[in-house]
Amino acid sequence: MSIITIIGAGMMGSAMSFPARANGHDVRLVGTPLDRGIIEHAKETGFHITLKRQLPEGIRFCQFEELEDALEGADLLIGGVSSMGVDWFMDSVIPRIPAALPVLSVTKGMMNTREGEFISFPELYARRFPDSGIRFNAIGGPCTSYELADRDQTQVCFCGPDMALLRKMKAMLNTDFYHISLSEDIRGVECAVALKNAYALGVTLAVGLSEKLDGKMHYNSQAALFGQSVKEMRKILRLYGGRDINIYLGAGDLYVTVFGGRTRLIGTLLGKGYPIDEAKKELAGVTLESIVIAERTARAVRSSIARGEARSEDFPLLMYIDGLLAGESGAGIPWDAFEEEMTV
Amino acid sequence: MSIITIIGAGMMGSAMSFPARANGHDVRLVGTPLDRGIIEHAKETGFHITLKRQLPEGIRFCQFEELEDALEGADLLIGGVSSMGVDWFMDSVIPRIPAALPVLSVTKGMMNTREGEFISFPELYARRFPDSGIRFNAIGGPCTSYELADRDQTQVCFCGPDMALLRKMKAMLNTDFYHISLSEDIRGVECAVALKNAYALGVTLAVGLSEKLDGKMHYNSQAALFGQSVKEMRKILRLYGGRDINIYLGAGDLYVTVFGGRTRLIGTLLGKGYPIDEAKKELAGVTLESIVIAERTARAVRSSIARGEARSEDFPLLMYIDGLLAGESGAGIPWDAFEEEMTV
Repeated sequence: MSIITIIGAGMMGSAMSFPARANGHDVRLVGTPLDRGIIEHAKETGFHITLKRQLPEGIRFCQFEELEDALEGADLLIGGVSSMGVDWFMDSVIPRIPAALPVLSVTKGMMNTREGEFISFPELYARRFPDSGIRFNAIGGPCTSYELADRDQTQVCFCGPDMALLRKMKAMLNTDFYHISLSEDIRGVECAVALKNAYALGVTLAVGLSEKLDGKMHYNSQAALFGQSVKEMRKILRLYGGRDINIYLGAGDLYVTVFGGRTRLIGTLLGKGYPIDEAKKELAGVTLESIVIAERTARAVRSSIARGEARSEDFPLLMYIDGLLAGESGAGIPWDAFEEEMTV
Repeated sequence: MSIITIIGAGMMGSAMSFPARANGHDVRLVGTPLDRGIIEHAKETGFHITLKRQLPEGIRFCQFEELEDALEGADLLIGGVSSMGVDWFMDSVIPRIPAALPVLSVTKGMMNTREGEFISFPELYARRFPDSGIRFNAIGGPCTSYELADRDQTQVCFCGPDMALLRKMKAMLNTDFYHISLSEDIRGVECAVALKNAYALGVTLAVGLSEKLDGKMHYNSQAALFGQSVKEMRKILRLYGGRDINIYLGAGDLYVTVFGGRTRLIGTLLGKGYPIDEAKKELAGVTLESIVIAERTARAVRSSIARGEARSEDFPLLMYIDGLLAGESGAGIPWDAFEEEMTV
């Protein structure tokens, strides 16, 4: 058995305790300063107040002040912060991680660099801490925290620079409900799963259109946007050096994301014609990762276009979403722009 | 304005009269011998009894005996039969089509050849009628007939051997609700859209699992099967010479197919553990295209494996579906077999 320390006691970080405990590992769940209430409550009852689930027996719950202790002897560190917590993670956690302790991160997202690149978080960490010796890995694929906590059948992909290490982490966390593929294509995996957040906004525009029209679901239009999303995601993957095999992860993850949560809510409101400012009021001040990643993706693609490496007509849906997020009222979904010709 | 003759007055063939009439074409809708009641009723009322929609004004309805008349002066023939009607179409219709009249077919499916190939219907027609001079084209993409008839936003792809002709057909049928991409990759388009029928059975297995478990929808498992489907579909596309860009059509079409109809019903029953014979009772004798295409795809892939051109471990979901359809009780969805390693 190994010692697994999870930093970040949000829903997904905490849900990782289920496969970890299922395999009998010693699990230490460390809250960020924002998770103080979650940890306090869990220390007393074992119940996670936002995941709304009883966590597995035998977890050691720690406030952030107990980090040093929680890292002592650890074999794996799971980074459980959201993309909004990445700067904090780099400032407050990474400098304290020993070189030999591998990091496996659930954080989904991509970053724009000043040079116009579009890079994943493991790549960002490795660049910021080039001499740390730490091996940064990440988890992609369709996985909602609730269902992982309910031990539903789930298929994810661990990505990182070293297959031997990936296999070791898989051996620690693979269970009969948590199934793990492995990939050394970090950029490809992380890009695919980040893009689904952006494009889920696009697919759910059609949900809004339907609700406005007659309140019933209409699938031709959703499927058209789903197909267009897959087409554009595949182009973006290739543009930024990911292998296009990863489109299966993006498509699976897109499928799960259009079914629920706040991304669907915002996409639906935008599809109904709400301006972004009004739609955002529904979020009550919470920053939505989908919006952030859509903006970042559009920024990356625009700079690729400016450099002559891409054509804007290849990304009509992304450009339309970006326009809506920038407050443009929108002339409606650019259906005609999705039409393409392909010669052989 | 042109003359468009539709042969086959089933739901999809008849729905094609909506974009055709929206563009003001002269439309002749010819029933097969099985459509006698539909045509009789439509002649009197203009109402389509299975599509459950009032058809556009100005259509000329013809019984099959009136075929000769209906072909007189036609500029485009739309083949509206289902894959079950392909033999009939080759026996009774194609020999009577003038060489100059292009054929655009809504029929979805693929055929196994004795040589172990996996070919599309336009290819089959061209092989069977090599001296006919007829140019055979087809329509792929996510499009339910009801929603097309309701003029919902729809995105399809016309495929055929000649881009100039494809553009001409697009000019005839493109409307502000029916959006048409064009492709010369017939094999790729038709394979992608046929495969979604097979794999929709796979995705909906998880719906059955959920219903059996607690009656609620579970998305991690559906998304895992959706992703695995996309992964296998992409491999099959490549195996049979289609370009993998067409995966966007397959994914969009898969998305629309898992939401309804008999394919979802059968997949759900199989997912609950019903043997195929009991599940088929729900179909009341109707042959389901999804089952046919799943069996054909598995047959093609098995012969590719036998020839050493493919590996069975690349298609665990297809092989599992095929086993269920062959009456095997199944040891459960082979989740572990979906796990993969990808080095760079």
